[in-house]
Amino acid sequence: MGAVKTKRMPRAVREQQMLDAAVQTFGQRGYMAASMDEIAELAGVSKPLVYLYLNSKEDLFTACIRREGQALTEAVRAGVDTASPADRQLWDGLRAFFSHTARHPDGWSVLHLQARTHGEPFAAEVAAMRAELVAFVTELIAVAAREAHRDPDLADREVAGLAEALVGAAESLAAWSNATPGITAKQAAATLMNFAWAGLGNLMEGRPWSPPAEIEGR
Amino acid sequence: MGAVKTKRMPRAVREQQMLDAAVQTFGQRGYMAASMDEIAELAGVSKPLVYLYLNSKEDLFTACIRREGQALTEAVRAGVDTASPADRQLWDGLRAFFSHTARHPDGWSVLHLQARTHGEPFAAEVAAMRAELVAFVTELIAVAAREAHRDPDLADREVAGLAEALVGAAESLAAWSNATPGITAKQAAATLMNFAWAGLGNLMEGRPWSPPAEIEGR
Repeated sequence: MGAVKTKRMPRAVREQQMLDAAVQTFGQRGYMAASMDEIAELAGVSKPLVYLYLNSKEDLFTACIRREGQALTEAVRAGVDTASPADRQLWDGLRAFFSHTARHPDGWSVLHLQARTHGEPFAAEVAAMRAELVAFVTELIAVAAREAHRDPDLADREVAGLAEALVGAAESLAAWSNATPGITAKQAAATLMNFAWAGLGNLMEGRPWSPPAEIEGR
Repeated sequence: MGAVKTKRMPRAVREQQMLDAAVQTFGQRGYMAASMDEIAELAGVSKPLVYLYLNSKEDLFTACIRREGQALTEAVRAGVDTASPADRQLWDGLRAFFSHTARHPDGWSVLHLQARTHGEPFAAEVAAMRAELVAFVTELIAVAAREAHRDPDLADREVAGLAEALVGAAESLAAWSNATPGITAKQAAATLMNFAWAGLGNLMEGRPWSPPAEIEGR
């Protein structure tokens, strides 16, 4: 009867079950410690079927990184209405990011910890996903800056640097809040919004922080 | 004559030369691609001497992580006068951080990329160094918050979250500015200071960003 079931279930559905089991196992036990036996058992399939569909532990892990990376970037994009004011867009984006990473802690562990810790090909997969998030945030900041100024005086490089800072801060906070009991996604989003917005907001209004005069000599 | 030189030079000095060569090689070529032959040649010593002093490629890499991590945390601590006002401390700390990572790009690559990408023991070494930086920043923010308020209303958890966000932002910006031609350490520090201070500064003064009323229902 098990064999009959296996035959009837479409391959795409089976693969998603295997990926679910793999993300959970890689995320909780780590890439090295995770075994294909364990993943097959959790997915309720035979180990040869996992190899038939996903080829190898490396390919299975790569498929996990791609799926989880895509789900995260899609969640952030879906959370943001680009017709909203800039601070609302940022708040919505941060809430979508922290909600998703809190609801999918194993996926986040695969992306943020496991994929970076086990060799360059996996790290490159994550870097591609991260570049997409940075591009999205860069565009958000650039649009906000254009709205705020008649003549834009936030240089492209400054905007790119701010986007890198914001994404780095979000990654760091997501890892911390998932590892710290009692921190909700909304609290993490509010902490980063507090940290970031008044700073970005002042920049948009042309009020940068100024270095102390006595050090700079001006 | 080479052999005489080798004998005369103190072990501690030789080891530092080997570590200099190893950091350069690991940082520029990556942990996997770096060979012990290459490191020995660059250090001007024989390969057996490298193994005699540092034991294995793994141990040599661990020694690199520890030395570079210690140098970075010491540079940040040394850059900050804890008697200064909070914004000056943060500015000095950020300038020390970005100057150090810009002057030691190979060391930063070892810490930020290589050590995280090649297995849990190395990642754990970097995590310990990072925890020290986070603790330093946490204390800086906590002291500033105590100064700014008669009764401290920034909860410990909020301060811890802000420190995580700031360190994550700094790591991300350092990697970006080292990889982007023409971005100076001072520009990177100013970008993050602009991003962070007005936000933190407003928090210290008890002016948090408020979520839009219509979403929060309050």
